[in-house]
Amino acid sequence: MAQSLGYRVARFCCYRLNAGGPQWTRNFSKETQSLTIREQENGIRRIILNNPKKRNALSLPMLTSLRENILTDLDRDDLRVIIISARGPVFSSGHDLKELTSDQGREYHTRVFQTCSEVMTLIQDVPVPVIAMVNGVATAAGCQLVASCDIAVASEKSTFATPGVNIGLFCSTPGVAIGRAVPKKVAMEMLFTGQPISAQDALLHGLVSKVVSEDRLEEETLAIAQRVCESSRPVVALGKATFHRQMAQGRDAAYATASKVMVDNLALRDGQEGIRAFLEKRRPVWTNSSEKAHE
Amino acid sequence: MAQSLGYRVARFCCYRLNAGGPQWTRNFSKETQSLTIREQENGIRRIILNNPKKRNALSLPMLTSLRENILTDLDRDDLRVIIISARGPVFSSGHDLKELTSDQGREYHTRVFQTCSEVMTLIQDVPVPVIAMVNGVATAAGCQLVASCDIAVASEKSTFATPGVNIGLFCSTPGVAIGRAVPKKVAMEMLFTGQPISAQDALLHGLVSKVVSEDRLEEETLAIAQRVCESSRPVVALGKATFHRQMAQGRDAAYATASKVMVDNLALRDGQEGIRAFLEKRRPVWTNSSEKAHE
Amino acid sequence: MAQSLGYRVARFCCYRLNAGGPQWTRNFSKETQSLTIREQENGIRRIILNNPKKRNALSLPMLTSLRENILTDLDRDDLRVIIISARGPVFSSGHDLKELTSDQGREYHTRVFQTCSEVMTLIQDVPVPVIAMVNGVATAAGCQLVASCDIAVASEKSTFATPGVNIGLFCSTPGVAIGRAVPKKVAMEMLFTGQPISAQDALLHGLVSKVVSEDRLEEETLAIAQRVCESSRPVVALGKATFHRQMAQGRDAAYATASKVMVDNLALRDGQEGIRAFLEKRRPVWTNSSEKAHE
Repeated sequence: MAQSLGYRVARFCCYRLNAGGPQWTRNFSKETQSLTIREQENGIRRIILNNPKKRNALSLPMLTSLRENILTDLDRDDLRVIIISARGPVFSSGHDLKELTSDQGREYHTRVFQTCSEVMTLIQDVPVPVIAMVNGVATAAGCQLVASCDIAVASEKSTFATPGVNIGLFCSTPGVAIGRAVPKKVAMEMLFTGQPISAQDALLHGLVSKVVSEDRLEEETLAIAQRVCESSRPVVALGKATFHRQMAQGRDAAYATASKVMVDNLALRDGQEGIRAFLEKRRPVWTNSSEKAHE
Repeated sequence: MAQSLGYRVARFCCYRLNAGGPQWTRNFSKETQSLTIREQENGIRRIILNNPKKRNALSLPMLTSLRENILTDLDRDDLRVIIISARGPVFSSGHDLKELTSDQGREYHTRVFQTCSEVMTLIQDVPVPVIAMVNGVATAAGCQLVASCDIAVASEKSTFATPGVNIGLFCSTPGVAIGRAVPKKVAMEMLFTGQPISAQDALLHGLVSKVVSEDRLEEETLAIAQRVCESSRPVVALGKATFHRQMAQGRDAAYATASKVMVDNLALRDGQEGIRAFLEKRRPVWTNSSEKAHE
Repeated sequence: MAQSLGYRVARFCCYRLNAGGPQWTRNFSKETQSLTIREQENGIRRIILNNPKKRNALSLPMLTSLRENILTDLDRDDLRVIIISARGPVFSSGHDLKELTSDQGREYHTRVFQTCSEVMTLIQDVPVPVIAMVNGVATAAGCQLVASCDIAVASEKSTFATPGVNIGLFCSTPGVAIGRAVPKKVAMEMLFTGQPISAQDALLHGLVSKVVSEDRLEEETLAIAQRVCESSRPVVALGKATFHRQMAQGRDAAYATASKVMVDNLALRDGQEGIRAFLEKRRPVWTNSSEKAHE
């Protein structure tokens, strides 16, 4: 979990941060780019956690790199879906503990958890679906990352745990995402005992959306991503934002929100194109723009 | 999904609506009554979606008819439970897309979604339990209807989907009901991919309460309805209203609400009769009235 | 469910209550102590419902005894986890119906439900995890007790039901705990029909955390308790309080709460010890005190 490189880079980042924000982000990203790999083809962006020797720890540089990979060209029409996966047998082991010793101090710890929470909420707030493709162990903030994605596909060998309690650091921030994904009792047993659950149990309780054999993981995940690509980007964006928004409301307010959105969705060019195509029994041709239909 | 008849009736309804509200509702209901069938016997009201040629689309006339079938004589003591089912291989395919083209206009679209939300929330707000009996495909608002019922029994062949995203109309209003019925990740995969889930998966994730073979569907559903009929109507009404109310509150407020209701429940004639009958080892004889017990 | 002894003691308690509060609680507890058994060894407190003849009804004396068993020496470092179990084939049948007749009156009923709600919320609010070990039938408030515990382990033969509707007293207060533990449709079918669900279904829907064969129930439950004992007490206390607190908040507020708690957790002596031990590849030595680490 611990990583000396991560540690040194993190210290550097810490100092630079004090010097001034946005510019730093850019400089910094060059240095840490290799912690994650970003590829994009046919609307599907793949972000690969690329520090298997350090069990893909979510160090501050890793989190920063992940955030940048998500934010880059986020509003371009040719981005339709993001898949987050990892190299090596560990999807992610969570925070880099070397960043959390008393040597780093309270202010640094605060920055680590703030950045982590930002990345986790960013995943829900971006206008494209984010899919976790998990092939191995996901623990602590690594498990939180899976719970935070919109969809999660896991191989059968994958396991999920929040073992912080065993090392004196209760997984309270992972609990935010996991407690909202699985039944409370399941979350609490994971949090209080630190014991891992299997991919099948993760599926049973809603932590992941699908479990497949390891050799089919890539194919099944890409099939879901491909399916998203066949939809209209602004329609998906409107739907994703609305889902998260209405879920935070009471029932009646949620219906008011969603009913208005349905009407707005119909006013989109792609909303009208989809319905016309259906009635005319042909495939829709999306503009993928947020333009309203001619009224 | 589209239906020419539904379309014509809907246009008619639209014009009449402008003429004046409540009276319209009555005139209109006569014309559309055949879209649903309402039967009632021994406390059990059955409402059957009756437009199988149009895949039981929830057109505005269908929704209006459904609403009227629910509201008619709602407060009579001889109504104890409602079962909603459908003729044909499709439980319901959701909205009538012919009502959602740009020809109809924003105002009409607004009316469609408002009426739909009204029916869905009405199902939760009426004083008797509403059971969905599903034997086939339930998609989009049809799936929302299942999710909105208090109890849902499905045959093994039934499937559930929210495929709006495929035709450029994200299932945002169905997402309100489905997001509150199943784990978030399950809801999101359904919403983003439009792919159907099986009856078994629907059971696993809480979208339906029970799955049985097709030839036992009627029997098992009626057994649940019959069981409800054996309870006291005001006790069930108080319990149903309280469940939905407290679920929208924080834990401590929920306990304050429910604790007070328990005491009120005990003050009902039927509350005291039930306890006396239990202590005297005999069957209770319900008044089914909301009268308080003599103090 | 009814119990004559419980009834007489309850009447006594009722009269004494009028005489004056806190002192009463102490006198009273002596008289009712045998309704529950409390044992403690190696950090594990066991509270055993001990009125099998009366199906371990949660009479007011039983609830008072249970509350006192939970509260006694709650803040001592040598208490780390609580296991609630029961003697006899019934875990608990819920309220004592003899306390709920009109003879007792509204004020007394109010006291019963307030005390019950206090015990149920107390279980979530105490600083140590509370585990239900269920070997048999848990109904009504007995089922609520299971739902209110942080973790629940059940034997295969156990069953769970909320049958109040059958005796004219809808399980509205159990619905608070059960509606927050399982999917809404599952809760509603239980509440409206009163039909029991099996241990396996309870596991499937999140009402219990684990199901094992009867002969392994004790061993498996103790293993979970033992695991909790291996963690730092203040870390677990902070984690438990935070979990319940953030779950009642919206996502962003929840992350703000939990992120701050992570930093506070790191400031604990045991937080730093755990991380150091991990990095030094040795077992941590907990102080189990809430002291902050030397900065």
